[in-house]
Amino acid sequence: MLSTIYIIAITAEAMTGALAAGRRNMDLFGVMVIAFLTALGGGTVRDIVLGHYPIGWTQHPEYIWLVLSAGLFTVLIARFMHRFGKIFLILDAFGLIAFTLIGCEVALGMGYHPTVVIMAGMTTGIAGGVLRDILCSRVPVVFRHELYASVALLVALSYLGLGELGVQHDINVLMSFALGLVIRLCAIYRGWRLPVFSYRQPID
Amino acid sequence: MLSTIYIIAITAEAMTGALAAGRRNMDLFGVMVIAFLTALGGGTVRDIVLGHYPIGWTQHPEYIWLVLSAGLFTVLIARFMHRFGKIFLILDAFGLIAFTLIGCEVALGMGYHPTVVIMAGMTTGIAGGVLRDILCSRVPVVFRHELYASVALLVALSYLGLGELGVQHDINVLMSFALGLVIRLCAIYRGWRLPVFSYRQPID
Amino acid sequence: MLSTIYIIAITAEAMTGALAAGRRNMDLFGVMVIAFLTALGGGTVRDIVLGHYPIGWTQHPEYIWLVLSAGLFTVLIARFMHRFGKIFLILDAFGLIAFTLIGCEVALGMGYHPTVVIMAGMTTGIAGGVLRDILCSRVPVVFRHELYASVALLVALSYLGLGELGVQHDINVLMSFALGLVIRLCAIYRGWRLPVFSYRQPID
Repeated sequence: MLSTIYIIAITAEAMTGALAAGRRNMDLFGVMVIAFLTALGGGTVRDIVLGHYPIGWTQHPEYIWLVLSAGLFTVLIARFMHRFGKIFLILDAFGLIAFTLIGCEVALGMGYHPTVVIMAGMTTGIAGGVLRDILCSRVPVVFRHELYASVALLVALSYLGLGELGVQHDINVLMSFALGLVIRLCAIYRGWRLPVFSYRQPID
Repeated sequence: MLSTIYIIAITAEAMTGALAAGRRNMDLFGVMVIAFLTALGGGTVRDIVLGHYPIGWTQHPEYIWLVLSAGLFTVLIARFMHRFGKIFLILDAFGLIAFTLIGCEVALGMGYHPTVVIMAGMTTGIAGGVLRDILCSRVPVVFRHELYASVALLVALSYLGLGELGVQHDINVLMSFALGLVIRLCAIYRGWRLPVFSYRQPID
Repeated sequence: MLSTIYIIAITAEAMTGALAAGRRNMDLFGVMVIAFLTALGGGTVRDIVLGHYPIGWTQHPEYIWLVLSAGLFTVLIARFMHRFGKIFLILDAFGLIAFTLIGCEVALGMGYHPTVVIMAGMTTGIAGGVLRDILCSRVPVVFRHELYASVALLVALSYLGLGELGVQHDINVLMSFALGLVIRLCAIYRGWRLPVFSYRQPID
């Protein structure tokens, strides 16, 4: 199940990447790179930090082709994209949660400390979007937006906690997934967000 | 032969890095870092992603000294640089193609899938320039400029294709190199470029 | 001793990260990420480049908690921070030097060439601040500021040189530390800086 969701997720993330590249008037190649990094960059960063070689997508070239096609497809249908805004946000939420759970699983399988497992999950969930925003020269949305990273954190905590309690793996995934989805959708529709920290001293 | 071209290439790339740093009024240290990352950053990113340790330049300190010297030299002769604009672009084209071929060879030698080999070649060719542009806070030129990444792609495809056809290695390198050079020079002199994707929806 | 200073250092660096995030109006999560990367990012980059796995902080979750707490604490006391400006700069100098020495030790222990050892030390000392500035979309301060990277360079050179001369390890650390501190404080109080390279040709 996680694997089907994963495929939907990388497709959706690749599309958000392509749109961000379009906002910066990038050429087709730039669109492809940003689509690729948005979709597969989170897992790449996680694998490098954990020393988990070979990196996932190098063993699954079909994922590479999928995200590149999704980027190209986005360019073709861009004019209609605003009609799908909501569907998009929901697919993106699926992606965030699926990435987070997969990230936790990888770190757990390598025997890392629970704190590192949580960070691996969050990194997988959000680093792709951070890379996209850095390459498009803007302050990463995830650091300023409504609850997004917090959803990744809660999903990771729930997954680890339920695992500790001995909940069977598939049920654990299902429950953590549902929890994340509910919170993320509330954040979107009700505008929940973390407090912002504004500091106005001159730069020293 | 590839190794001689490689040395010319990292020198030329270090110089473009130093100039970019100068446009941002960086101090001498900043110039060195940007020169280093522009010249050797592409290979570093490739080695990290492929898990190819130890990373190339850590075993060849002479390359480190070469690119640092090139950066320093650029600062000294900066006022004359605009006279060499065209020579520069051609050296840079040599670099792009040599980096791409070397990147393909490394990935091929590690037994990666052809799709990954192509990506390794392209990464080696262009990631240095992307790092340079990120550190200088601008949208990477390679995503908006005339055919550049596309040249890396064609060179990688040619190298893999001719290899598959059983063409002898040195002839393959020569032919792929020539192909890349012709296309790159046409792109420069005729202004060939990829279509740009402009997307004007508000950021969600 | 280096280990006590290390703990002070990552705390101070986490606080500078949190303040930088505050200047960009990031939410609490953004503050945490920037605090973490500023404090532990330099060592992470060094470990990845040297292939030194597992990465330091993944084996010391207590450091993760320390820097996250420091980030949170900074948000709470931000309004009083400007009173501690000088103390802060001194703690930051301790951090820079301690990080540099630790970086040199790691690379030396892995048998790298002296040039690479120096670069590993400098990377550990300054990469955290560079990551902080990239994520906050500004040209890294270290490339434009008064002597900072140069201090890391001198500390690394001194540590390697004294080691080569057969000076006992603890005395070496102490002497290199003192040298770095004196130069850094002079740079701060007397405004010492490297010459700036300004290049005003149009971007080609």
